[in-house]
Amino acid sequence: MTPWRLIADVGGTNVRFARVFDGLVVAERRAYQGARFESFIHAMRAYAAETGGLAGCASVAIGAAGPVAAGEIHLTNIAWTIREAEVEAEAGAPCTLLNDVEAAAYGALTLTEPDYALLSGPAPDLSRAMRLLIANIGTGFGAAALFKVANVWVSCPSEAGHMSLRLPDDAPAGLRSAFPSVEHALSGRGLVDLHAALSGRDDGLSARDICANAAYDPAAAATIRLFAEITGSVLGDLTLAYTAWDGVFLVGSVAKGCAATDPRAMRAAFENKGPMSDRLKAVPVALMLKEDPAFFGLAIAPMRTR
Amino acid sequence: MTPWRLIADVGGTNVRFARVFDGLVVAERRAYQGARFESFIHAMRAYAAETGGLAGCASVAIGAAGPVAAGEIHLTNIAWTIREAEVEAEAGAPCTLLNDVEAAAYGALTLTEPDYALLSGPAPDLSRAMRLLIANIGTGFGAAALFKVANVWVSCPSEAGHMSLRLPDDAPAGLRSAFPSVEHALSGRGLVDLHAALSGRDDGLSARDICANAAYDPAAAATIRLFAEITGSVLGDLTLAYTAWDGVFLVGSVAKGCAATDPRAMRAAFENKGPMSDRLKAVPVALMLKEDPAFFGLAIAPMRTR
Repeated sequence: MTPWRLIADVGGTNVRFARVFDGLVVAERRAYQGARFESFIHAMRAYAAETGGLAGCASVAIGAAGPVAAGEIHLTNIAWTIREAEVEAEAGAPCTLLNDVEAAAYGALTLTEPDYALLSGPAPDLSRAMRLLIANIGTGFGAAALFKVANVWVSCPSEAGHMSLRLPDDAPAGLRSAFPSVEHALSGRGLVDLHAALSGRDDGLSARDICANAAYDPAAAATIRLFAEITGSVLGDLTLAYTAWDGVFLVGSVAKGCAATDPRAMRAAFENKGPMSDRLKAVPVALMLKEDPAFFGLAIAPMRTR
Repeated sequence: MTPWRLIADVGGTNVRFARVFDGLVVAERRAYQGARFESFIHAMRAYAAETGGLAGCASVAIGAAGPVAAGEIHLTNIAWTIREAEVEAEAGAPCTLLNDVEAAAYGALTLTEPDYALLSGPAPDLSRAMRLLIANIGTGFGAAALFKVANVWVSCPSEAGHMSLRLPDDAPAGLRSAFPSVEHALSGRGLVDLHAALSGRDDGLSARDICANAAYDPAAAATIRLFAEITGSVLGDLTLAYTAWDGVFLVGSVAKGCAATDPRAMRAAFENKGPMSDRLKAVPVALMLKEDPAFFGLAIAPMRTR
């Protein structure tokens, strides 16, 4: 039997499984509502039963929305704890648990040109890259870095969403205390809160509505512009933290819909880092267009060594 | 002949060499004024000539005050460019160029208990550590992270000094525009500038004077407190960026003299990161006391693979 890798992308609502052959072919995709199952292992059993069992499973890679600690992830929005040891016992194969943004980061390595849109800067050259930054703007803010070490890519997870945020110097002074951390601004909720703070209206608009209104509503346009500036500045800071000179890739619904709508404002803030401005001018910033970057990342993520 | 490693710590003023035996014994230390030599290679020749030549030199590791790019470092305060290829040709052995803070970071791995002072948090356990942060506060601000990957420590250099700085929310509003980046506050010059801004006096006091005056001068005391708070907040942010849960080590004259004088204020700001506060409570923050941490780091730094 051809050996294959079992992969799982676990969010708060859905858990998605697939089988990977040759590190490239992602087959037998299925999605389940997490709430239907008592635990991750139960969901994994259901997937295995529906798709022909676990024979030939050579490894398991799981990306989940939470920090990995001591081989475990406690999920935030569902009462599951995923443990590498339990998955290994069930699958009879080694298991690697990753944070979901780390998984998406590995996905960047599988991109070819139509899979991303260059937002600003020179074209990325993934064949020569040594350090990359991946940032997710969606329900929250997440980031991960990838480093090439001895010809193998390794990831560095982060909790960058909780770093302190410096708003642009020309932002209204009253905003500062309401946006202490990166995620307070760079998330779906953050965009809504920025709009309420800038417009003085709490009118129930969603992040999607605000993006759509920006074409004719000055308050929405100002919100999108500030959001793009904050995104650029935070991405610039993280590029400096990791010296991720080879490229920045954005993923996530809010990044796609909102942050990327004003790439010039984003770029100006990205490069506005004093003596590092010239260095940052050479760094590509791109938007991942490929669906399910975490799935493709899990397909190729190396096994963790302990 | 016993093989040995040649190490060099290159600053703007002095270049220091030594030979390392068995990755541990640092011998034949000599320091030279850089300005006496046309290039790094000339200084290296002088050292070799004085200490018995290069026979048996198995590898060279150089830490220098600048970013490594394409196997080169252009030094900031002296018109030298150090090139790995030139050093390799001269020494007949492979050369690894590191940023000086990366070199100091590897030095953290050689510490035993009397070599550092725990400033706050639980005691570090280097034998179990997987991720560490090292920050230098001196003439400027530098940081590097260390990750254990497949049982080998690898470093991530940074340009963290140029990241945008969020001042504490209760800092005088007028200060913001004067301190755009981390290094604008966290450096010897930064401390002097903070003191001038807080006291309204530009009285020619050095960073050392301000530290000394803090015992009786309220403006100096307020400066030291703010400096400690900014240090704590920036170290907290970088710990989140690298998920450096296993410990933070401070090096540098200004860190030693000033930042570490108010460890409680530093700690409160370090942990003040919203939902990550509990996670940060478990992270040790220590001050390296060992002299020449970069020397010890260069002794054990792995060869770079290309």
